[in-house]
Amino acid sequence: MVRGIPVPRMGQERISRIKKVLREDHLDGILITSLENIHYLSGFTGSDAALVVTETKGYFLADSRYTTQAREEVSGFEVIEYKKKIEGLSDLLNDLGLKGIGFEPQNLTYGAHKELAEKVRRGELIPLSERIKNIRVVKDDEEIGRIKRTIDIASKSLKENIWRIKPGTRENEIALELEFSMRRNGADGISFDTIVISGARSALPHGKPSEKRIDEGEFIIVDFGSQCGGYYSDETCTFFCGKPSRRQKEVYQIVKDAHDRTIASVRPGRRAMELDAIARGWIKDAGYGAHFGHMTGHGVGLAVHENPVIGPESEDVVEEGMIFTVEPGIYIPGWGGVRIEDMVLVTGNGCDVLTNLSKEIEIIE
Amino acid sequence: MVRGIPVPRMGQERISRIKKVLREDHLDGILITSLENIHYLSGFTGSDAALVVTETKGYFLADSRYTTQAREEVSGFEVIEYKKKIEGLSDLLNDLGLKGIGFEPQNLTYGAHKELAEKVRRGELIPLSERIKNIRVVKDDEEIGRIKRTIDIASKSLKENIWRIKPGTRENEIALELEFSMRRNGADGISFDTIVISGARSALPHGKPSEKRIDEGEFIIVDFGSQCGGYYSDETCTFFCGKPSRRQKEVYQIVKDAHDRTIASVRPGRRAMELDAIARGWIKDAGYGAHFGHMTGHGVGLAVHENPVIGPESEDVVEEGMIFTVEPGIYIPGWGGVRIEDMVLVTGNGCDVLTNLSKEIEIIE
Repeated sequence: MVRGIPVPRMGQERISRIKKVLREDHLDGILITSLENIHYLSGFTGSDAALVVTETKGYFLADSRYTTQAREEVSGFEVIEYKKKIEGLSDLLNDLGLKGIGFEPQNLTYGAHKELAEKVRRGELIPLSERIKNIRVVKDDEEIGRIKRTIDIASKSLKENIWRIKPGTRENEIALELEFSMRRNGADGISFDTIVISGARSALPHGKPSEKRIDEGEFIIVDFGSQCGGYYSDETCTFFCGKPSRRQKEVYQIVKDAHDRTIASVRPGRRAMELDAIARGWIKDAGYGAHFGHMTGHGVGLAVHENPVIGPESEDVVEEGMIFTVEPGIYIPGWGGVRIEDMVLVTGNGCDVLTNLSKEIEIIE
Repeated sequence: MVRGIPVPRMGQERISRIKKVLREDHLDGILITSLENIHYLSGFTGSDAALVVTETKGYFLADSRYTTQAREEVSGFEVIEYKKKIEGLSDLLNDLGLKGIGFEPQNLTYGAHKELAEKVRRGELIPLSERIKNIRVVKDDEEIGRIKRTIDIASKSLKENIWRIKPGTRENEIALELEFSMRRNGADGISFDTIVISGARSALPHGKPSEKRIDEGEFIIVDFGSQCGGYYSDETCTFFCGKPSRRQKEVYQIVKDAHDRTIASVRPGRRAMELDAIARGWIKDAGYGAHFGHMTGHGVGLAVHENPVIGPESEDVVEEGMIFTVEPGIYIPGWGGVRIEDMVLVTGNGCDVLTNLSKEIEIIE
């Protein structure tokens, strides 16, 4: 786009999405400050930079720590080095003489916005509409490949550690070894602090692995993911140690059916709130409505939680190429919990389940 | 403070610091949204919450994922559960009828501020002054103990892995094994992606460990830290493999002298910019001024980078109880670099060096 650098096809498709926002929001330029969108649009994987996109050009801005890296990673943008971020941005925006400049209101802080607004002399900073939240919801082939690779690293790592899930092993030992395996298998990091919780603790949706040892007759929830090349995975398996009681089997099956029925209903054109209602309704009808308090799912990509939202108030509509989780659960305080989570890729007429570990009740004897 | 919960002495000292900001900024209440300040003031270690502090009461707000954890960790605050964050906050602020409400302008996003400002009916949201950035600069005994523990875990872990630093080992293998050791030794996480860079790559201040193998005649920079109970450590050792040339010895010694002289000058009342000038001046006088582009140091605590700033434009003044890094470096593109970093605790008449690995040139043969 500038300086004769050939823009890869994928890059052009992505840039056309941000330009669509530019036009539909009636702007002269867009300032991008979130690292996920910077990565998505420019290919930069470092941790501090900004982009300015106009109808005809793209600019990448960073300080001297990152310009060498940017010149290797970024294509289709003119790389500009600044000493101070706000000054660097305002200088460029003033030089370009842009009037209406969109920015990410959920990323730029109040303080940074104020300082920048004072320095941008003729332009006006305008919060971007909700459209900006959706530029990454439909994944392209390169992204799907990267996400599959990330999932494979995570799955392989859990398989290598399933033998540890047995009476006497501490929750935090399993979590730590699983994280080590993911890194050894090529993950750049983990998606979030790995959750391994057992027994009554499995009723805490965001419980932290503790020194507690796994015991017979307990559910063990393992919610984990790896991060690779900026892309995340997210999957939950619930194991059982010993012989489950009738109620334990029943609760597992309700969650499993809620999960399966929701996945069977995914297809382009479905409203996300309908999908949520399928999982939530099933659990409610089985008498456990009070014990499922979180969303049914969320998009996963360059952020571990992104659009679409699969929840009761979501306005999102399912589109081909979206990747999101389906993760109903039942959590009974003092008794225990079950969560079953897969990531799905929406196809032309349904969806493919990307995560590949079995979601049948895995009984460890 | 409320509901008869006894506030630990340390908690009261910390709350008195935020109340000082309340009075000096002429406010009726302060909204705290940064996780570091929430942890500091309330003890909460989770990842989503908010505090409201008035002259007479403190309120802790979180959603249902975190209220169980909060009731265990938080003291001195009334715990309030919300469904939606902005609504929960505005309901409380409206109920309390607060007029001038301070907020953290570098933490609250433009979007969250706008939404909250629309919902807070009688009150006015006012960005907190620079004072808020300094409430954590002076560490109390509990914090000093936690930081020392974090440093010990990191040091012990590097010692366990020094044998790996030898010709033929890959940079990323050393980094990964060092991270594993820190976790095994009790760290909750790492401070930042561990930097292990060698040869010409050691000239990149923010280089990422690569597949490159260490070779004879190379500097190896290891910049690393652990996170434990929310507190961070940060230390850099530069190793040398084989027999250093005269210039390699000289560059190392210049950085070492800059580091030693700066540390020898730390005492209460010193201006941070004077400390920076000592390190920067020494390197400049030795002819390497163009090759030292970053700050001389930064505070470390609940954030890995916090106030004070030890840099040329800093307005900070050294106080007893501050903990910060001293980390001069010389980076020569294509040739290599040296950085030497310790963390110091300011005492009544000087400072104690908290990090305990040798900073003499460590030659690996």
